[in-house]
Amino acid sequence: MSLLLKPLRVCNVFRFPRSGATSLTINYFDIFNKYISTTLDLPKTMAAEKTLPKIFQFVDKNVASYKNLLKEAVAIPSVSCDVKYREDCVRMVHWMQDKLKEVGATTELRDIGFQTIDGKEVKLPPVLIGSLGNDKKKNTICVYGHLDVQPALKSDGWLSEPFELVERDNKLYGRGSTDDKGPVIGWLHAINAYKGVGEELPVNLKFVFECMEESGSEGLDALLMEQLKPAGFFKDVDYVCISDNYWLGTTKPCITYGLRGISYYFLEVECAKMDLHSGVYGGTVHEAMTDLIYLMGQLVDKDGKILITDIYKSVAPLTENEKSLYTDIDFDPEAYRQSIEAPKLAHNGVKEQLLMHRWRYPSLSLHGIEGAAFQPGAKTVIPGKVIGKFSIRLVPNQEPEEVEKLVFDYVNKKWAEHGSPNKMRITAQSGRPWTENPDHPHYQAAARATKLIYQTDPDMSREGGSIPVTITLQEASGRNVLLLPMGAGDDMAHSQNEKLNVRNYIEGIKLFAAYLYEVGKLPK
Amino acid sequence: MSLLLKPLRVCNVFRFPRSGATSLTINYFDIFNKYISTTLDLPKTMAAEKTLPKIFQFVDKNVASYKNLLKEAVAIPSVSCDVKYREDCVRMVHWMQDKLKEVGATTELRDIGFQTIDGKEVKLPPVLIGSLGNDKKKNTICVYGHLDVQPALKSDGWLSEPFELVERDNKLYGRGSTDDKGPVIGWLHAINAYKGVGEELPVNLKFVFECMEESGSEGLDALLMEQLKPAGFFKDVDYVCISDNYWLGTTKPCITYGLRGISYYFLEVECAKMDLHSGVYGGTVHEAMTDLIYLMGQLVDKDGKILITDIYKSVAPLTENEKSLYTDIDFDPEAYRQSIEAPKLAHNGVKEQLLMHRWRYPSLSLHGIEGAAFQPGAKTVIPGKVIGKFSIRLVPNQEPEEVEKLVFDYVNKKWAEHGSPNKMRITAQSGRPWTENPDHPHYQAAARATKLIYQTDPDMSREGGSIPVTITLQEASGRNVLLLPMGAGDDMAHSQNEKLNVRNYIEGIKLFAAYLYEVGKLPK
Repeated sequence: MSLLLKPLRVCNVFRFPRSGATSLTINYFDIFNKYISTTLDLPKTMAAEKTLPKIFQFVDKNVASYKNLLKEAVAIPSVSCDVKYREDCVRMVHWMQDKLKEVGATTELRDIGFQTIDGKEVKLPPVLIGSLGNDKKKNTICVYGHLDVQPALKSDGWLSEPFELVERDNKLYGRGSTDDKGPVIGWLHAINAYKGVGEELPVNLKFVFECMEESGSEGLDALLMEQLKPAGFFKDVDYVCISDNYWLGTTKPCITYGLRGISYYFLEVECAKMDLHSGVYGGTVHEAMTDLIYLMGQLVDKDGKILITDIYKSVAPLTENEKSLYTDIDFDPEAYRQSIEAPKLAHNGVKEQLLMHRWRYPSLSLHGIEGAAFQPGAKTVIPGKVIGKFSIRLVPNQEPEEVEKLVFDYVNKKWAEHGSPNKMRITAQSGRPWTENPDHPHYQAAARATKLIYQTDPDMSREGGSIPVTITLQEASGRNVLLLPMGAGDDMAHSQNEKLNVRNYIEGIKLFAAYLYEVGKLPK
Repeated sequence: MSLLLKPLRVCNVFRFPRSGATSLTINYFDIFNKYISTTLDLPKTMAAEKTLPKIFQFVDKNVASYKNLLKEAVAIPSVSCDVKYREDCVRMVHWMQDKLKEVGATTELRDIGFQTIDGKEVKLPPVLIGSLGNDKKKNTICVYGHLDVQPALKSDGWLSEPFELVERDNKLYGRGSTDDKGPVIGWLHAINAYKGVGEELPVNLKFVFECMEESGSEGLDALLMEQLKPAGFFKDVDYVCISDNYWLGTTKPCITYGLRGISYYFLEVECAKMDLHSGVYGGTVHEAMTDLIYLMGQLVDKDGKILITDIYKSVAPLTENEKSLYTDIDFDPEAYRQSIEAPKLAHNGVKEQLLMHRWRYPSLSLHGIEGAAFQPGAKTVIPGKVIGKFSIRLVPNQEPEEVEKLVFDYVNKKWAEHGSPNKMRITAQSGRPWTENPDHPHYQAAARATKLIYQTDPDMSREGGSIPVTITLQEASGRNVLLLPMGAGDDMAHSQNEKLNVRNYIEGIKLFAAYLYEVGKLPK
């Protein structure tokens, strides 16, 4: 899952109604509630099936080769945000193209042009698109995944080399293991398992695999909306599936029908054209860092309450019906706290509050400062220009444009009160929140598949994070989009020691196979 | 000049009296005032000298070779703070050793052990010590300089490769050109010029050249105080000269008799054992960045006033006598402002106020944050542990221990008021301010030499920066220490596009030669 974002796009998505239309909001949660309580008593018919048990056996026999393939993928350091790894990104796309070909797909690499870094044009890695099967009687699923990863250095605090997949305690440690190489390769194995047991694939598949997701999926929107859509790539697509997120906790599976949006801010203050000696200039200039720290200090309080005027005004009101839903979600705050070794969680660690603040309320995080000292040691420069970074996770019914305006107005007001002679500038990039209708046969099919593998009803969950391409795929295909996670909630994507449990990897492959099977049974 | 610092050392230095003893303070400035107004009408005797004019001619004939040697030195990227350049640092020391040998010095490389970086022991570059001449009838000068440089990348905003010396508009651009390779090599040329005109050196010389100055002169103190001093290295030394600072402005030379000290703080807040997805965890944890920004926001106001309780209490009181001195100093605030393109200077740009806040008042700078996002782009991590960096430049009569206590008490009080459940820790490293007696024959000799070269009385100035080794050399030798700058005030040491004016380089070589001559005439 990306922590990044793309510039705002306008698209038609299923959305929570605006505040004021509370009856609609109630309806929505009523449907969800009913769905949770009634639709998951299902897989009796499944027991009679022969295909899946054969496939599951096949998967269990091939664990070693599955690990090896993931090891191969992790070994390619396809870090998209750092141009010095750009060749590795391209290599990764080619590697995946070969694998797709091996399972019989027709593939194509699509050039998506250039990105500008420090004023220089740098070629983007191509997007890999593919197609497997075109049986008009079968449903067609479009699978999206990404092949790029976040940066990682052993010296960041990894226990083993990040680009060398290492198994410890039934966990596969390595950058990209869970985000998103494990799931992407999982699809290959699931398809292959059908072949391995001599069964026909129950669906047609379309693939979109990119290598810039961790860097805002640069170039992908244009490809999807301006090239693939008009050319009919999505014409036969019935369902879209993305496996690029995680369970809520560590034991119970979930299916995800909502993501927060994001509004990311660049708050720039300049006091001089270059960095200055703090000894020589300290005491004689109005320092940019002092101004920036002041502004950043006006945004959020220690308990996470956002201080920007009216920021909560358009958040969908919490109804009693919705409130009651959180109680049933399987989530252990203490385990969550321990997994990150936090001294104390926000909201006094109350489960329902935590879930709501993760899914349905906005949050503001201060990420860091560009242009200031960041190295270990005692650097004593006065930075000439600094750019503070913060973001707000958006929720229904917050519209990026209105949130940006509230933030700009607030920051400008605080700046005027502060009265510094320096130059200040604030800019934003935003992506909307996404929600889908989980009371859709597609979700029911995925729920049946999940219950078959994990013997438990999945939670229907939302996510605090953002995967902007979700909205684009929804719009490009006009079809129901579903997030089917493979990894667990403690996988530490983007962090040090990212891992994928062996269990989640192997059962995840079975889950994907079962999902293909279940979607195959949906009426065409 | 270093922006860094060493751990606090206790040593006996000439100091401003503590506040309360104002009569002494007045005496001190009276002496200085008298010195400025009476002692610089001197070099009539010099005109009759034959040696120096010959030397100056020789220097003027060798400009091209001087530039070439500086180019050679700049080409070695002896960045001390980054271990990947450690071999270059060692290479730089060896290069300088060869050059010292070429001018006839006996040299020695002294092992100063290891430093610990990320838990790993890394060998420090050796210190180069040397000796030239041991005529008991001559005065002996100990010259200190450093061979290491600050990091520099073209992409930081350099107009040409930082490690390739390039001449533009009579300025020599390159990392280390002014800080401190130009001055260090200047000594070689000055010595060589005596040889070149067939004259005997008027003094004996001792050399201490290190390659860790920009990283706190690690290991040097122990060498100076525990090895060289007991072994008698400083026994015959009469004067100490350091050329590692700059003129106040761009036209008028100065001699420097004071440096601010520094107290550097590491303010650490931890909310989790690793970095977290801001999407997944945002809204559920008390974020460390929020706490740190709050604390950093309590330290200084937009006009540079330090908010730490009682921090100004021990600053030496400003007497009328001292106040009047600043009026005569040659300093153009508007040129200073333009050179850094600041929208507006502090203290409304009033010259006397600027000088006082640079020399005699403490200043607090916020340098940056370790552990937070610092890269370009929209990284959206919640940092698990962040370390805010700030420093206070210390002035007479601030003692590091008392300043540290004030800061710790204040930060702890603000932290308690804030009421975060996270972990906070503050640590410090400090070095005292240094002042020397400018009414000393050594300073008079340097002033005569300066006037001879630049046809103007040098300003007797202090510096806002810190060179901690100054105090150690003062203590190790027990002799008068003088800072004799070569470069101009706009040389941008540590910044992008560091340069040394050709004029300052060439006239600086002459200045060093004249200084050796003048000190040679001081009674033994």
